[in-house]
Amino acid sequence: MLYFDCDYMEGAHPAILQRLMETNMEHTYGYGKDAYCESAKAKIRTACQCPEAEIYFLVGGTQTNATVIRGFLKPFEGVIAADTGHIGVHEAGAIESGGHKVLTIPHKNGKLEAAAVKHYLERFYQDGSCTHMVQPGMVYISHPTEYGTLYTKEELKALRKVCEEYQLPLFLDGARLGYGLCAPGTDVTLADLAKLCDVFYIGGTKVGALFGEAVVFPKKNTVPGFFTLMKQQGAVLAKGRLLGIQFDTLFTENLYLKISSHAIEMAMRIKELLTEHGCPLYINSPTNQQFVVLNAAQREALKDRVSCETWEELENGAAAVRFASSWATKPEDVEELGRILKTLP
Amino acid sequence: MLYFDCDYMEGAHPAILQRLMETNMEHTYGYGKDAYCESAKAKIRTACQCPEAEIYFLVGGTQTNATVIRGFLKPFEGVIAADTGHIGVHEAGAIESGGHKVLTIPHKNGKLEAAAVKHYLERFYQDGSCTHMVQPGMVYISHPTEYGTLYTKEELKALRKVCEEYQLPLFLDGARLGYGLCAPGTDVTLADLAKLCDVFYIGGTKVGALFGEAVVFPKKNTVPGFFTLMKQQGAVLAKGRLLGIQFDTLFTENLYLKISSHAIEMAMRIKELLTEHGCPLYINSPTNQQFVVLNAAQREALKDRVSCETWEELENGAAAVRFASSWATKPEDVEELGRILKTLP
Amino acid sequence: MLYFDCDYMEGAHPAILQRLMETNMEHTYGYGKDAYCESAKAKIRTACQCPEAEIYFLVGGTQTNATVIRGFLKPFEGVIAADTGHIGVHEAGAIESGGHKVLTIPHKNGKLEAAAVKHYLERFYQDGSCTHMVQPGMVYISHPTEYGTLYTKEELKALRKVCEEYQLPLFLDGARLGYGLCAPGTDVTLADLAKLCDVFYIGGTKVGALFGEAVVFPKKNTVPGFFTLMKQQGAVLAKGRLLGIQFDTLFTENLYLKISSHAIEMAMRIKELLTEHGCPLYINSPTNQQFVVLNAAQREALKDRVSCETWEELENGAAAVRFASSWATKPEDVEELGRILKTLP
Amino acid sequence: MLYFDCDYMEGAHPAILQRLMETNMEHTYGYGKDAYCESAKAKIRTACQCPEAEIYFLVGGTQTNATVIRGFLKPFEGVIAADTGHIGVHEAGAIESGGHKVLTIPHKNGKLEAAAVKHYLERFYQDGSCTHMVQPGMVYISHPTEYGTLYTKEELKALRKVCEEYQLPLFLDGARLGYGLCAPGTDVTLADLAKLCDVFYIGGTKVGALFGEAVVFPKKNTVPGFFTLMKQQGAVLAKGRLLGIQFDTLFTENLYLKISSHAIEMAMRIKELLTEHGCPLYINSPTNQQFVVLNAAQREALKDRVSCETWEELENGAAAVRFASSWATKPEDVEELGRILKTLP
Repeated sequence: MLYFDCDYMEGAHPAILQRLMETNMEHTYGYGKDAYCESAKAKIRTACQCPEAEIYFLVGGTQTNATVIRGFLKPFEGVIAADTGHIGVHEAGAIESGGHKVLTIPHKNGKLEAAAVKHYLERFYQDGSCTHMVQPGMVYISHPTEYGTLYTKEELKALRKVCEEYQLPLFLDGARLGYGLCAPGTDVTLADLAKLCDVFYIGGTKVGALFGEAVVFPKKNTVPGFFTLMKQQGAVLAKGRLLGIQFDTLFTENLYLKISSHAIEMAMRIKELLTEHGCPLYINSPTNQQFVVLNAAQREALKDRVSCETWEELENGAAAVRFASSWATKPEDVEELGRILKTLP
Repeated sequence: MLYFDCDYMEGAHPAILQRLMETNMEHTYGYGKDAYCESAKAKIRTACQCPEAEIYFLVGGTQTNATVIRGFLKPFEGVIAADTGHIGVHEAGAIESGGHKVLTIPHKNGKLEAAAVKHYLERFYQDGSCTHMVQPGMVYISHPTEYGTLYTKEELKALRKVCEEYQLPLFLDGARLGYGLCAPGTDVTLADLAKLCDVFYIGGTKVGALFGEAVVFPKKNTVPGFFTLMKQQGAVLAKGRLLGIQFDTLFTENLYLKISSHAIEMAMRIKELLTEHGCPLYINSPTNQQFVVLNAAQREALKDRVSCETWEELENGAAAVRFASSWATKPEDVEELGRILKTLP
Repeated sequence: MLYFDCDYMEGAHPAILQRLMETNMEHTYGYGKDAYCESAKAKIRTACQCPEAEIYFLVGGTQTNATVIRGFLKPFEGVIAADTGHIGVHEAGAIESGGHKVLTIPHKNGKLEAAAVKHYLERFYQDGSCTHMVQPGMVYISHPTEYGTLYTKEELKALRKVCEEYQLPLFLDGARLGYGLCAPGTDVTLADLAKLCDVFYIGGTKVGALFGEAVVFPKKNTVPGFFTLMKQQGAVLAKGRLLGIQFDTLFTENLYLKISSHAIEMAMRIKELLTEHGCPLYINSPTNQQFVVLNAAQREALKDRVSCETWEELENGAAAVRFASSWATKPEDVEELGRILKTLP
Repeated sequence: MLYFDCDYMEGAHPAILQRLMETNMEHTYGYGKDAYCESAKAKIRTACQCPEAEIYFLVGGTQTNATVIRGFLKPFEGVIAADTGHIGVHEAGAIESGGHKVLTIPHKNGKLEAAAVKHYLERFYQDGSCTHMVQPGMVYISHPTEYGTLYTKEELKALRKVCEEYQLPLFLDGARLGYGLCAPGTDVTLADLAKLCDVFYIGGTKVGALFGEAVVFPKKNTVPGFFTLMKQQGAVLAKGRLLGIQFDTLFTENLYLKISSHAIEMAMRIKELLTEHGCPLYINSPTNQQFVVLNAAQREALKDRVSCETWEELENGAAAVRFASSWATKPEDVEELGRILKTLP
């Protein structure tokens, strides 16, 4: 069986495991106060060209989104997100659990458009009963989005402008950030994110780490007490160095981008193979998640040989499905996929 | 100026004020443990033909909705509501403040249709990632709805059936219940609600009281500890008898329905006058809220003489507006509205 | 039966009911945007000698405490209070319901001492693991306290100084504030509170109103969005004018202080009668709540003739009990208490 | 420098790292739906002699405590704990963040006594205003306690009896459970816990794993929807197999108990050395945490050679300090401690 279900089916990049082995019996203090965390933070600051950045390491995505959002919002504020956003759908109400509404705006290609946000805010404040409604308190986007699509630098700047106009912090969920940074045609860099966002995170779980997300606040003291908030939210790892070691490895000799680039190459080849075979793209994604439509016969023919994720059931047994590559995808598996596709009806 | 903005612009029905005066210097214990509350509860049980009903008096609607919903839901559950529902829009996130998501379904004439709820639930449980999503934990409807419309008994039974199939409690927000019970053509009675709902409330604030909502649990001990939950949520009035006295008065000699009927008569006359004048109905409401479309010239002509609420701005300066009657609406004011309408362009 | 159980056993001062009657059929907009609320606020600002004060009217004490505290605290912060404080014991977890811990310090005569707060804070920040603990985020006191005692101006200044040193807002719960302002020997005025507190409230429920608490923020915009927070917490009354009318009446011609003074006179006479009779004071309170020790025989002899509240069961059937007076206490009832006491064993 | 600060200063037991290496490139589905988790659960069920047990793997202790407690409590309920309990002090308000108060009872040797709990509950329900107070909803203990002490089987049975009488679930925090199970003189086994607790967890983070806690519900469906609650609380690891692999390894060939026994041997030797040297025990702990009093001269002499944790500052520069051993403690380090102690003043 070939597996293209998602980007978190394997363990960690071997260099990470190697480092964990080498350092295993060292003694370090807990909760992130160790030299590995410090080193990782320094390297991330450099990668972001942001020497002042405050950086925290958390374990997983849902917890990172929930903790960051709680850090910014007042009790009666909500977070603006695309209606497809992960926080609104697949996090089991983690945001509401903290008391906050997710204020959804229809997406376009998975993205939140600056104009749509502006329109929403204008209408909100024109509404005579707006003080009876959840106040918009921040803007959440993901990059890549749930559909694998990417913002351009211009789009991010436009969002930033709207955010500034309404004094809303901009939060970018980068659970798959590596795959976004290496995508063909993107003009968005880590340094750009550090300039345009109030907070973003660099995903580790889906990009080579066992687990871990690095939250970057480009400005110091953006959320006073953030460590205590993390502790309260169960997001502080006792053996914090495990996160430090992983991110230190990922940000040594450009490993994060190298392995992301590999995934992108694999994804582009997968796209090529699927379109050659005549499968329509469900959405045209430049990143490691590829969404195509398979008809019923194709699904049936593949089901015992290729594992991928059903995204949406369509008519007549067809479906939009997701093929995801990752740092761990083997070129031979992709070519095998090509051979299998050739045998399809 | 004539006022038809809403149904809470005046104080209380004079009979209520009279009783507050008469009882003012009596000594009673606090927090609802007084004879007036007991008497009011007994009368409501009789009106509902439900001798076992457990009844609680709260101060206002937002607090009632939030408290009842918290009483039923587990931390990871949400409440299904029409997308127009009050809890999802105009309560400043009171439901989310308790940790719960409002799961919205598109309304039809302001109502939640049983078929739509069933379809939602079927799709939810078919979704392979449904354990990563907020679990539907109860169904919320309002009667009359935000648009003044009413469920038929058949519609309520259909909703009940879906609720039973999925073991979801059904909660009916009756902030304007009196106006629903007296509407022309309705076949829904208090006794029906006691049979079909797990909990509902009888609105006082908008139907003759100074304030107050009477929550009815037809079955005993539906939510163990509900009083303590109320206390925690700031919904227990120290001088609880004020609520007892008001509801006792409203449920003496049928006052609640009598004053509601008056409001309905006034509303039907308002509708008649507006349609005679050629204003299109925005929605056809059988209750005390009437929604019509006024064009720009009409709005301009009325603005210094008739106060009503803009519901939605439409094109070319037109708007959907709401005319609300209440127990306090004077026939002479309605006829004066008729005279003013005749002078319009 | 004579009733001295508490200060919320009757309705409202007759002047308030009178005004509610007179204004009953007027039309006003809801949620506090009416002229009565404006007038009441103006009078309270004058009484506080604080023309900039921002004032909000809420319905009850638990809800006021919870809402104000949520307005100030970050999610990982707690509120410092005396271990006897109402918020820590008798509000069913309203503060925790908002996510906040009540950080208790042992009281002295019901009061929180500046030195004890300072000591607590010093130790807290010296603790190496303090970032793993709930951060102190504000200081809560009540005046009068749960034991009826009062802070002196010097004590309040000392608390203020500690608060400033640690940048903690000072919140004074004035559920019984009138009785504190009129107590013999007090040197604390409303104007002092406006200078020394970041927020306080003037209790209506226990001091002549049907219900209602007036929250005073001496500085503008202390808690941005406070109205929306109130709405979310179910603390906004639809017919907001009911609160405006009540506080407007209480702050017209000094009524609030006049009726409070009456209660104090009654309480002093009660204390006199009880001590004349040889009942030891449980605590020496200068306000409307008097705490004395009754032995078993006294309790038995009184139980069918005088109703008072058992505060704490002591040994051998004795108890600390509370006699509360209020604006409504009749001199003849107090003298009757004296006569009854004379008949005791 | 010798390190005895705590039991989470190193990585994982080498057998765990070995297994992570071996399985690194395998493909598994996420969120705990993999064969390693299944295997680990089966082994834990066997170890607990509880074939019906429902088991969940979470990442860390604070998150486990918060999630379990939220799973059991109604919104107005609190959790009874010793005043020294971790949840009340060092988890930054994680319990309150979920809306629940920690109801503290004075500890005895770090333990919660059944008699004290019973007394608390009796008094609570006798209090006339108990419906205005946070309702006790469950009992939390830790084993070993914060002071390293252990419950006897009799003590646990007595607690169980009180819990049953008041229908309160009993939750045992086993962050250091291995060290408790192997302590000299204990008569409590995993099978006992499965009989006596409604839920408990087997700590991995402090007992050989990189991270991870295994929650055991001896009865099926004790908390319906627990997985979704975990997801909401950010406690579900995407690569769930990492937890499965670790616990599978720990519960293969008794590894969990073997490494715990090693730690206990080391701790007993440390205790011996310290007492030989004349350091008074601060508390007599049979587990891996040893608490002794060092005077000022001793602290000064050790500070550059031996790292241990200051527990409490005492008079004259003395302190209660903690020496913790773990699975990773080397005998030669302990003997080196002995040699250093001999050089002390």
